[in-house]
Amino acid sequence: MARKASLSGFPEWLPQERLVELHVLDTLRRTFELHGFSSIETRAVETIGQLLRKGEIDKEVYGLHRLQAEDDPGAPDQDKLALHFDLTVPFARYVVENAGYLAFPFRRYQIQKVWRGERPQEGRAREFTQADIDVVGDGELPFRYDVELALVMAEALSALPIPDFRIRVNNRKLAEGFYRGIGLTDTAGVLRSIDKLEKVGPEKVAELLQEELGATPEQAKAALQLAGIRTEDTSFVAQVRALGVEDELLEEGLAELEQVIGEACRRVPGKVIADLSIARGLDYYTGTVYETVLVGHEQLGSICSGGRYDALAAKGNRTFPGVGLSIGVTRLVMRILGQQLAAASREVPTAVLVALANDDSWSQAQDVAAALRSRGISTEVAAKAEKFGKQIKYADRRGIPFVWFTGHSDDGTLTHEVKDIRSGEQVPADPELWMPPAEDLAPRISATGTA
Amino acid sequence: MARKASLSGFPEWLPQERLVELHVLDTLRRTFELHGFSSIETRAVETIGQLLRKGEIDKEVYGLHRLQAEDDPGAPDQDKLALHFDLTVPFARYVVENAGYLAFPFRRYQIQKVWRGERPQEGRAREFTQADIDVVGDGELPFRYDVELALVMAEALSALPIPDFRIRVNNRKLAEGFYRGIGLTDTAGVLRSIDKLEKVGPEKVAELLQEELGATPEQAKAALQLAGIRTEDTSFVAQVRALGVEDELLEEGLAELEQVIGEACRRVPGKVIADLSIARGLDYYTGTVYETVLVGHEQLGSICSGGRYDALAAKGNRTFPGVGLSIGVTRLVMRILGQQLAAASREVPTAVLVALANDDSWSQAQDVAAALRSRGISTEVAAKAEKFGKQIKYADRRGIPFVWFTGHSDDGTLTHEVKDIRSGEQVPADPELWMPPAEDLAPRISATGTA
Repeated sequence: MARKASLSGFPEWLPQERLVELHVLDTLRRTFELHGFSSIETRAVETIGQLLRKGEIDKEVYGLHRLQAEDDPGAPDQDKLALHFDLTVPFARYVVENAGYLAFPFRRYQIQKVWRGERPQEGRAREFTQADIDVVGDGELPFRYDVELALVMAEALSALPIPDFRIRVNNRKLAEGFYRGIGLTDTAGVLRSIDKLEKVGPEKVAELLQEELGATPEQAKAALQLAGIRTEDTSFVAQVRALGVEDELLEEGLAELEQVIGEACRRVPGKVIADLSIARGLDYYTGTVYETVLVGHEQLGSICSGGRYDALAAKGNRTFPGVGLSIGVTRLVMRILGQQLAAASREVPTAVLVALANDDSWSQAQDVAAALRSRGISTEVAAKAEKFGKQIKYADRRGIPFVWFTGHSDDGTLTHEVKDIRSGEQVPADPELWMPPAEDLAPRISATGTA
Repeated sequence: MARKASLSGFPEWLPQERLVELHVLDTLRRTFELHGFSSIETRAVETIGQLLRKGEIDKEVYGLHRLQAEDDPGAPDQDKLALHFDLTVPFARYVVENAGYLAFPFRRYQIQKVWRGERPQEGRAREFTQADIDVVGDGELPFRYDVELALVMAEALSALPIPDFRIRVNNRKLAEGFYRGIGLTDTAGVLRSIDKLEKVGPEKVAELLQEELGATPEQAKAALQLAGIRTEDTSFVAQVRALGVEDELLEEGLAELEQVIGEACRRVPGKVIADLSIARGLDYYTGTVYETVLVGHEQLGSICSGGRYDALAAKGNRTFPGVGLSIGVTRLVMRILGQQLAAASREVPTAVLVALANDDSWSQAQDVAAALRSRGISTEVAAKAEKFGKQIKYADRRGIPFVWFTGHSDDGTLTHEVKDIRSGEQVPADPELWMPPAEDLAPRISATGTA
């Protein structure tokens, strides 16, 4: 990323960089579809009323206005339009609106751009792509989906050209039950303080708990002890029990988190860990919460977060509990490109350039190209019969590996040869049969190993 | 499309409808990449100054403002942000900004949403997807690309589940040279009047030409005679010549259009026709212009338009001439869905549901699912060990064709059977080997033949 975005916070990629992003997007889509998630998209805009539905928006939101329209002072503010700042709130609206047409539990993936008017910084853009998976039930949703979603995301992230990662999992019931058990009743307040742990450190959080929430030093200490527990297996259960707190909700949370970590240990060892410091700022989570860091890139922040929400979407008495995770695709791609963690093998899809011997042979060259394309070989035809050296240079500058030459034999029949311009080897070839080596068929994205 | 969008002009699709849209998008991408076009995306926003660069905007534009920011009266209007209303203007900016990093002629495709605050109506949304291809040169661009782009689009459209189509091609040089040749010097004015031909009819256009542009009745008649010429082959050349007008620019335009139609006749007979009434409103076209109608759906308007622009992008003295075409994907998809021209064979990607005999077998069922997924078979695992009838119903409601059952033989080894729930046939199967029939592997989109 030698170039700077011409508009701060709105990154744009060169064609060879876009190939890396496309690879990430294609890989995620493929993994999600293999696990039976359906694609949906929602509109880029929501009404401000809809965005405010879950209380104050803690994200910077872009409002919309029509340049050519006089202001319509009669339109209430809540009906005005704004760009969505995540894909969860729009999805909740979509589920409620289309409940009659969906089969529950409904599994969907959604890969779209979102916008936040925040100050751009490393890993944080104003326009960025999120890739979300959620499962939403009608009235109830088995806990098993909380386990499954961690496994799907571990598989999806493992398929990307990124460094090793850890999905850190906690459970709101566990935390809230524990706080209640030690006599701290403003559990949301405690969670907000604990959420600052990584930023301000344990001493400061202990102060906050005592000064703002009236905790005793012992209560603050116990809350911080809980937050200090982090295990790769289910041994966190014994560690929590050793703190000697008894509470029904705590037990429920322990059992749930144990299910997630226990199954993940078996299927994706080391990738999914229990981390009882994870709080997640947003209020709508009610059980499992997830965050994900890249090992060695922890300061980048979470690249995949989410959780269980039992009451995000509701229609009258009917509720739609769900669990979901969201990957910050742009944050990942910025890091991959910025630190050259992966690169494309060439910058264009083209595998073959059909050269022109003379300007009249363009149509004939299109016949050759059509034959190659019919077997999935991306092919361009030269636009002008320049010297062959110039036509080969056209291919070379783009990384197109093969140049095709058509001539005439003595008896007037067409002859075909294809040149690998990397090795210089040129061999006779039949446009109806020839195939490039599999690794040259399309650009490949590979980790560069500099991570 | 039984449902109405909850926000007029902002369509959203159900999962099975989205599969049709995805099929259209995938087909276009594949065709463009087979022809060597590189993918790029540009940011959704441009500065208002950038959008106004080519003169007044004749589209309704959505401006952006940050809800949480106090208004900054110091920021000049032209630096304020707005959503892009097409992909051509942003592409021109991208080319100028990144010229040093691109290999020219640069072939790119771009598939993104755009926004226009116009009154929503049949075939016209406020948020919609465009799929563009362009080739841009540095200083010069051979005319052959004008021919090639018509052929690529004919191939792309032929691969979609849509009714037959006609790409109508004209040439600004031909029209302007002709008008000049008959003594009408305000050629842009004549083009604007001719552009209204389909809306208001020839009598009204003749009036306009005489009243607004001072044409004589003979001049108006000649202009209308030219606009009446429409041929499937290159016979338009003789028809134009028969009108007895002589002009150098006219000859140049005739020769160019003859190249397009001549080659298209050979390669895609009947798909690309000469239609000398095509004007295209936008001012930046300088040669070839294209419009496309679906046969039997002409009132839907053009579904694929574009042309040659010699001066859209420039950097100092350096100009980047280009030629491009843009498909109105949302307009096409709205028509496909609204008239049920095509449908998906099922509404989820899932091919197999692995049933649970008891709740403890979930992890084992995940092993079966992982084995199937490793061969590209989209698989879900039941979340609860409900009665088999209920698990089969889960699959049936979504159109999942196969349900997998795992049991134990007398000696304790696992046994596997797979049931095709459409036929009821159930057979032993090996999770490491079994494949569904090719047509069941993924949802297929097919034309329903009701068109």
